[in-house]
Amino acid sequence: MSVSSSESSAPASPLTHFDAQGQAHMVDVSAKPATHRSATAEGWIRMLPATLALIAGGQAKKGDVLGIARIAAIQGAKRTAELIPLCHPLPLTRVAAQFELDSAGSRVRCEVTAETVGPTGVEMEALTAVQVALLTIYDMCKAADRGMVIEQVRLLEKLGGKSGHYRAD
Amino acid sequence: MSVSSSESSAPASPLTHFDAQGQAHMVDVSAKPATHRSATAEGWIRMLPATLALIAGGQAKKGDVLGIARIAAIQGAKRTAELIPLCHPLPLTRVAAQFELDSAGSRVRCEVTAETVGPTGVEMEALTAVQVALLTIYDMCKAADRGMVIEQVRLLEKLGGKSGHYRAD
Amino acid sequence: MSVSSSESSAPASPLTHFDAQGQAHMVDVSAKPATHRSATAEGWIRMLPATLALIAGGQAKKGDVLGIARIAAIQGAKRTAELIPLCHPLPLTRVAAQFELDSAGSRVRCEVTAETVGPTGVEMEALTAVQVALLTIYDMCKAADRGMVIEQVRLLEKLGGKSGHYRAD
Amino acid sequence: MSVSSSESSAPASPLTHFDAQGQAHMVDVSAKPATHRSATAEGWIRMLPATLALIAGGQAKKGDVLGIARIAAIQGAKRTAELIPLCHPLPLTRVAAQFELDSAGSRVRCEVTAETVGPTGVEMEALTAVQVALLTIYDMCKAADRGMVIEQVRLLEKLGGKSGHYRAD
Amino acid sequence: MSVSSSESSAPASPLTHFDAQGQAHMVDVSAKPATHRSATAEGWIRMLPATLALIAGGQAKKGDVLGIARIAAIQGAKRTAELIPLCHPLPLTRVAAQFELDSAGSRVRCEVTAETVGPTGVEMEALTAVQVALLTIYDMCKAADRGMVIEQVRLLEKLGGKSGHYRAD
Amino acid sequence: MSVSSSESSAPASPLTHFDAQGQAHMVDVSAKPATHRSATAEGWIRMLPATLALIAGGQAKKGDVLGIARIAAIQGAKRTAELIPLCHPLPLTRVAAQFELDSAGSRVRCEVTAETVGPTGVEMEALTAVQVALLTIYDMCKAADRGMVIEQVRLLEKLGGKSGHYRAD
Repeated sequence: MSVSSSESSAPASPLTHFDAQGQAHMVDVSAKPATHRSATAEGWIRMLPATLALIAGGQAKKGDVLGIARIAAIQGAKRTAELIPLCHPLPLTRVAAQFELDSAGSRVRCEVTAETVGPTGVEMEALTAVQVALLTIYDMCKAADRGMVIEQVRLLEKLGGKSGHYRAD
Repeated sequence: MSVSSSESSAPASPLTHFDAQGQAHMVDVSAKPATHRSATAEGWIRMLPATLALIAGGQAKKGDVLGIARIAAIQGAKRTAELIPLCHPLPLTRVAAQFELDSAGSRVRCEVTAETVGPTGVEMEALTAVQVALLTIYDMCKAADRGMVIEQVRLLEKLGGKSGHYRAD
Repeated sequence: MSVSSSESSAPASPLTHFDAQGQAHMVDVSAKPATHRSATAEGWIRMLPATLALIAGGQAKKGDVLGIARIAAIQGAKRTAELIPLCHPLPLTRVAAQFELDSAGSRVRCEVTAETVGPTGVEMEALTAVQVALLTIYDMCKAADRGMVIEQVRLLEKLGGKSGHYRAD
Repeated sequence: MSVSSSESSAPASPLTHFDAQGQAHMVDVSAKPATHRSATAEGWIRMLPATLALIAGGQAKKGDVLGIARIAAIQGAKRTAELIPLCHPLPLTRVAAQFELDSAGSRVRCEVTAETVGPTGVEMEALTAVQVALLTIYDMCKAADRGMVIEQVRLLEKLGGKSGHYRAD
Repeated sequence: MSVSSSESSAPASPLTHFDAQGQAHMVDVSAKPATHRSATAEGWIRMLPATLALIAGGQAKKGDVLGIARIAAIQGAKRTAELIPLCHPLPLTRVAAQFELDSAGSRVRCEVTAETVGPTGVEMEALTAVQVALLTIYDMCKAADRGMVIEQVRLLEKLGGKSGHYRAD
Repeated sequence: MSVSSSESSAPASPLTHFDAQGQAHMVDVSAKPATHRSATAEGWIRMLPATLALIAGGQAKKGDVLGIARIAAIQGAKRTAELIPLCHPLPLTRVAAQFELDSAGSRVRCEVTAETVGPTGVEMEALTAVQVALLTIYDMCKAADRGMVIEQVRLLEKLGGKSGHYRAD
């Protein structure tokens, strides 16, 4: 959509979470059909090379940081509507999280796909899951490396619903 | 701390969330005294200039995106131990969130300080609050701008506890 | 409905949350169709005129008590099934909260409408949201006025479902 | 405290949940000592005489509405900090709920006392517990009586802390 | 199903909660139709005869241990997806819990039936409710009897869904 | 303690969760000092030998059932006071879960130790964590084996507090 044109030609705010008086509400989706929706988000946590080595070591044997972050991501996705004030509660039908170690960049990438059959999209669930996964990695490695940075968290793709297919550049 | 030296001279992993067998546990803090602790974290969400203008407009009159994100941050801080698997539950004694609009960078900055009187630090609470605030901004503006990116989320400062004062560069 | 007639002509209690042995259960709604349902509830909090003036001041500039109570109402509506033991969990499709300042009565009125597409009504969600909003106002103003009273909390209207349209006198 | 004098003579708002810029925060209680605190709140739910008779019947034999409301009150008290945005989480050390049937007024009275050893008061916990109890009674009786009204919910007494002893008139 | 044959003839693990790489995920049920599903579970808590007598006494007059355990079971069923990491959130349409006192065995039996209309089964909800009920009995009687043992918790019956009717021997 | 003697010589019920009128309450622990407390609980889940083999395989390579159950146990311990109605909320200072495969008995043993510094014991936290761990194993293996049975869940040891050291036979 074109933000500038909607601003000039229409009185309605593009911020749909506010009503005509500018007050927040949980948007009415009662009349929207329950359809299949999917969203994929990604994010990174950058760290010292030695910290990345600790995580890499845990994959093969003990100290499975990424296995725990994966569970935290899935559990976090289910709590999205409790955390984000105007989010609709949604019955998630799938959540999957993947991690990649980027040695060159000394960082870990997390990608989460969430799905539902419902009247609204699941991008907040996918994004929340990514954030909880990255925070969990921070928590588990912070004794070794307090300077880790979470970065480039964004929506990659969104399928289903009236707004159609979105794909990040 | 120096990760490499601790690796070479000691068999214990610097990943304290794992025991000697490499299995996750909630670390024993029973013997640590309850002392005053504080942590400050920051993060950014980058967006289209038109989206930033919508947020700026809401501050003065209606559509108060940042006011809602502030409440979400405070509420999110209280849920940290539910989201991060190995986090200790903590009685927070203060949470404060601030936002700044960076027109040049077309982004919003969020800074959260969390405090407790307890046996462990509150950096996860501060970081979680920042993430929930930024996710809330994403949620409220996503109808206008799906390409927003959350970036540079990190711990700024940490006070109290055995590990002493930490301050990011 | 007529409570006395149902008591005389039928052995079943009008308290449907109990089975024939008088034991609580979450009532079976498996066979009820998912239809659009709406409920509106209201309530008041009475306070000192000076406290009402503080709230009124916050609307225009800073200290937005009602904006925070609105968010608490929406968040509270989503937690209804956790708070009320025999309530069915429901996917809310809309929650909206409004406030009015009644200078003559020195009180604030809160009205919440909740909607769902489901097999049971949403009156508990609307009522819970009103209560959480009024409690939040109490919390934010209690340093100035401990004697505030919450009053006249009731269901105003209910639409959808087998029991049809209910409207308070 | 005198609201009017603090307004005229001091720039600080009596609404302590807002900082000098009018932004909400969870107030700093880090420096306050953990002391014993107690709060008692009360409230009523008014109903048809036939509904009150159903509740009275449940006490003696089956359909124990008040027993369930009591459990809901205790459970609700523990969730206060999740529901009320700026409330501090508190380790409750006691919660007790009592009910009285007022046949003359055709209503049920609920009184809850909450206690803690901590740096802040527990009046919100007592009030929240009363509200959840009354909402639970509404839920369990609503099939028989949709017109029930929750009324006169207020703080009765507060002990401990810097502000001293408060007792409603 | 035959576990051994699927192991020898197919690379897919019978543990459907893991993907082909052995990583946990919340299984995709997006394409499964929402159908009526029911599950019944049971379990026991064994105790001293004197403890059983205390519980039996509470049924008739005061100290209603089983009434409270029943509410805990229903409330616990609603929290299943928060407790069990890979469980799908489900809108429960019925939960009912029953208790029997077994004087000969000096134990209490709990049986819970849960139902939903959804794409996945409700056996975890029924089992979780049984466990929470038995834990609640333990909690309420532990001052008198610390040696109580929870035993024989299992799925009794499961109806609906592609896997058909399951009934324990 | 001797239940029968306390019954004959004293009017007070040994069920301390009820007051003199037989009504449930959260027991007053305001005057009890915060001391170090520890509790250890255990439990088993019995299954087909082929199911046990699947779990054993996951430890070495992929499909880490026990790693996920361990995280669920720790997360579940933190939710104890939400699940068990009359439990006091407690700041856990340690949670550790261990699993053993018993090939002879074709079952998995789970042992959890929980600790706190507080006014009440942590046996419910340890028992709840065991139950959530065993339920998680059930959930992850149920596609292969619906007949698994959870058994012999009990308190093994309890340290600290007025009641002293308890150790199961």
